[in-house]
Amino acid sequence: MTAIAIVYHSGYGHTAVVAEHIAKGIAATPGVTAKLYKADELSTPDNGPWAELTAADAIIFGAPTYMGSASAPMKAFMDASSKMWFTQTWKDKLAAGFTNSASWSGDKLSTLTQFAVFAAQHGMIWAGTGMMPGNNNSKGSTEDINRVGSFLGLMTQANADQPPELAPPESDRKTAELFGKRIAEATVRWKRGA
Amino acid sequence: MTAIAIVYHSGYGHTAVVAEHIAKGIAATPGVTAKLYKADELSTPDNGPWAELTAADAIIFGAPTYMGSASAPMKAFMDASSKMWFTQTWKDKLAAGFTNSASWSGDKLSTLTQFAVFAAQHGMIWAGTGMMPGNNNSKGSTEDINRVGSFLGLMTQANADQPPELAPPESDRKTAELFGKRIAEATVRWKRGA
Amino acid sequence: MTAIAIVYHSGYGHTAVVAEHIAKGIAATPGVTAKLYKADELSTPDNGPWAELTAADAIIFGAPTYMGSASAPMKAFMDASSKMWFTQTWKDKLAAGFTNSASWSGDKLSTLTQFAVFAAQHGMIWAGTGMMPGNNNSKGSTEDINRVGSFLGLMTQANADQPPELAPPESDRKTAELFGKRIAEATVRWKRGA
Amino acid sequence: MTAIAIVYHSGYGHTAVVAEHIAKGIAATPGVTAKLYKADELSTPDNGPWAELTAADAIIFGAPTYMGSASAPMKAFMDASSKMWFTQTWKDKLAAGFTNSASWSGDKLSTLTQFAVFAAQHGMIWAGTGMMPGNNNSKGSTEDINRVGSFLGLMTQANADQPPELAPPESDRKTAELFGKRIAEATVRWKRGA
Repeated sequence: MTAIAIVYHSGYGHTAVVAEHIAKGIAATPGVTAKLYKADELSTPDNGPWAELTAADAIIFGAPTYMGSASAPMKAFMDASSKMWFTQTWKDKLAAGFTNSASWSGDKLSTLTQFAVFAAQHGMIWAGTGMMPGNNNSKGSTEDINRVGSFLGLMTQANADQPPELAPPESDRKTAELFGKRIAEATVRWKRGA
Repeated sequence: MTAIAIVYHSGYGHTAVVAEHIAKGIAATPGVTAKLYKADELSTPDNGPWAELTAADAIIFGAPTYMGSASAPMKAFMDASSKMWFTQTWKDKLAAGFTNSASWSGDKLSTLTQFAVFAAQHGMIWAGTGMMPGNNNSKGSTEDINRVGSFLGLMTQANADQPPELAPPESDRKTAELFGKRIAEATVRWKRGA
Repeated sequence: MTAIAIVYHSGYGHTAVVAEHIAKGIAATPGVTAKLYKADELSTPDNGPWAELTAADAIIFGAPTYMGSASAPMKAFMDASSKMWFTQTWKDKLAAGFTNSASWSGDKLSTLTQFAVFAAQHGMIWAGTGMMPGNNNSKGSTEDINRVGSFLGLMTQANADQPPELAPPESDRKTAELFGKRIAEATVRWKRGA
Repeated sequence: MTAIAIVYHSGYGHTAVVAEHIAKGIAATPGVTAKLYKADELSTPDNGPWAELTAADAIIFGAPTYMGSASAPMKAFMDASSKMWFTQTWKDKLAAGFTNSASWSGDKLSTLTQFAVFAAQHGMIWAGTGMMPGNNNSKGSTEDINRVGSFLGLMTQANADQPPELAPPESDRKTAELFGKRIAEATVRWKRGA
C-alpha cells in the first residue's frame, strides 16, 4: 500500500473540507490510503504523530492563507519539522500543497510558494495540480474545474460569510478530489520507481 | 506638476486597456500627469525615452502574466534598465505594478512580486492597491471593485476568447482608475515630502 | 517627532541584535525615535501594545527565516493583526522588513516577499534597503556593507554555531544601522508630505 | 537511455559554465545523457529543437538572475513554450532549475520560484537540490558544497569582475555536478515508475 499524509490547519472549517475531498480523491485510487493530520497536533518536535509522517510515501501540506501566507498554526508545524530537516528524514518523499481564502487571488500563490520552498528544504519532490485552468473564457463559469486557475498547488475560494457546509462550492470540492487523485498517482509512480 | 510614467507591454491589447484606465485615474488627479510608454521602445539601454523616465516622479510597471511571470518584452525592458541601476538613477522614485491574465489566479502574484523585487533593486518605494478585496462573500459579485482580490499591485482578468473591447470587464477598468488615483496621490505626497 | 516601531521575533538572539542595530540607526536620525516590540507580546489581537503600533508612523517587521519563511511566533503576530486589517488602521504607514538565517541565501527572500505582501494587505508603503550590493567582486569581502546582496529588505547571516555576541558579524550590524537610517529618512519624508 | 535537456541562457558565460558542470554530473550517471540547448535557439514556438525537448525525460531550466528574475532571452523561450502548454506536451516530465548572479542573494530565489511556477504550469514534477547548506558555521568556508545555501534549485555566485574561467569558483562547479547527478537519479526513478 502507498500511504499519503495530509497535514493541514483549518481556522473555520473551510480548509478542512478541502482536505477531506483531497483525501476522498486519494482513497478512490487503488492501492493508496490517505490520512488527515491536524497541524495543531504537530506543533512541537517531540509530540504528535511524527512517526506516521516518516512512514508516509507523500505529505500534502494545507492551510488557509491568512494575511498573505500560511496560517500561524501551520507555520508552527513547519518550524517544528526542523528536527526532521536536520536528519533529512523526509528526503525524496513526494510533496504537494493546497490553500483556501475568501478572495480569489487573496495572495494564495504566496502560500503555495511558501510550501514548495519548505518542501525543497526537506529534499522532497513537488507535484502540482497538473490541470488546465477553468473559468477563463466567455463559455466558462465558476462551476468549472480549477476555476481559480492554479498550477503549483490547489487553490480554493470560500466566501467569507458562508459556513463550510456551503463554501468552498461544489466545483472546488470536485477539483480537490481530482487533485487528490493526481497526487496519489504521482506517489504510486514515484514509489514504484525506487 | 507631478509626472507619472507607465511602462507596459501588451500582447493582445488587454493590458493596454488597463494601462489606459490607470492613466485616466492619474490624469483625474489635480496636478498630476500620466504618460504611457511601450516596453518595446525601451528594449535596449541606449535607445528610447529613457530620459523621460528619469524625469518622472513615479514609474508604474505593467505586463500580462505569461507562463507565470511578466512577458518577455517587458523583461527585455527590465534588463535594459540595468544601466539605470548601476547609477541608481531611479532611486527614491515611487513604483507600482499591474498585470492581467485570462485565469483568475493565473500566477499573477508572481508577476507582481517580480515587479516589487525589481523596483527594490532600483531603490524605489513601492505602493500597492490600498484596496479591500471585493467579490469574496455571498453578496459580492464580479462587478465589485478589486474583484480579483489583490494588494501588492493591480490584478485584472480578461477572458481568453474576448477582445480588448470587452475584456477585462468594466469592474476591472474602474478598479484600474482608482488604482491610478491612489498611485497619483501617493506620488504627490512622496514628492511633497522631499 | 516621527515614531518607528520595530516588531520582531528572535529565536536565539541573532535577529534581536539586528533589530537593535536598526533601532540605533533610526535613533541617530534627528527627530526620529525607534521602539522595539517582541512579536510574542502581540500574538493575540486583544492584548499587547497594539495602540502604540497604531500611533507609529512606520512599522518594520523582522524575523529569522525558519524552514523557508518567517518564524511561527512572527506569523502569530501577523495573523493577529487581521483585526487591524479589517479597519485598515495601518493604511499609508511606511513598512520595511528584515530577516536573518545561518545560510547565505537560506531562502531569506521568501521571508522578505512574505513581509512585503503582508504590508500591502495592510495598505502600507514599502521601502527597501536602497543599497548597492557588496561582496560580489574580486576586491570585495565579507566586511562589505550589504554583503548578502539584498534589496527588498535587509538580509543578515549568522553562523549556526555562534552566539549573538559574535554573529551576525560587524558588517551586517553596520548594514543594519544604515538600513535603519534609510527607513527613518523615508518615514520623515513620507510623513512630511501628508 | 534516459535523456535530460538543459535549456539555458548565459549573458557572459558564467551560467554556461554551470550548465556544463550540471551536464557533466548527469553524464556520469549510468544510463543517462545530457544535452545543452541555448534559449536563444528556442525563442519562437515554430523554430528550434522543440521536438528534442518533447523527447526528453526531464528539462532543467537555467538563467542568470538579471534585475531580480530570469534574463529576458530565457523568458522569450518560456513564453514561446506556451504552444507546448496548450497541449500539455511536457506534462509529467521532471523539471529543475538553476541560476547565477554576482551577489550572494541577488534575488536568485525569485528566479528559482519563477522556474518552479513555470514548470507547474506545464504540469511538470519539480526536484530541488536535495542538499544541506554549507558555509553557514564557523568551521565552514566558501569551498563548501552548496555554499550559497539553496534548496529549490541550484544557486551559484560569480564575481562581477571575473571571467567564466574563474567564476563561479570550484565549489560551485562541484555543487553543479552533484546537482546534475541528483536530477539524473530522480529522472531515472520517475521514468522507471511509469
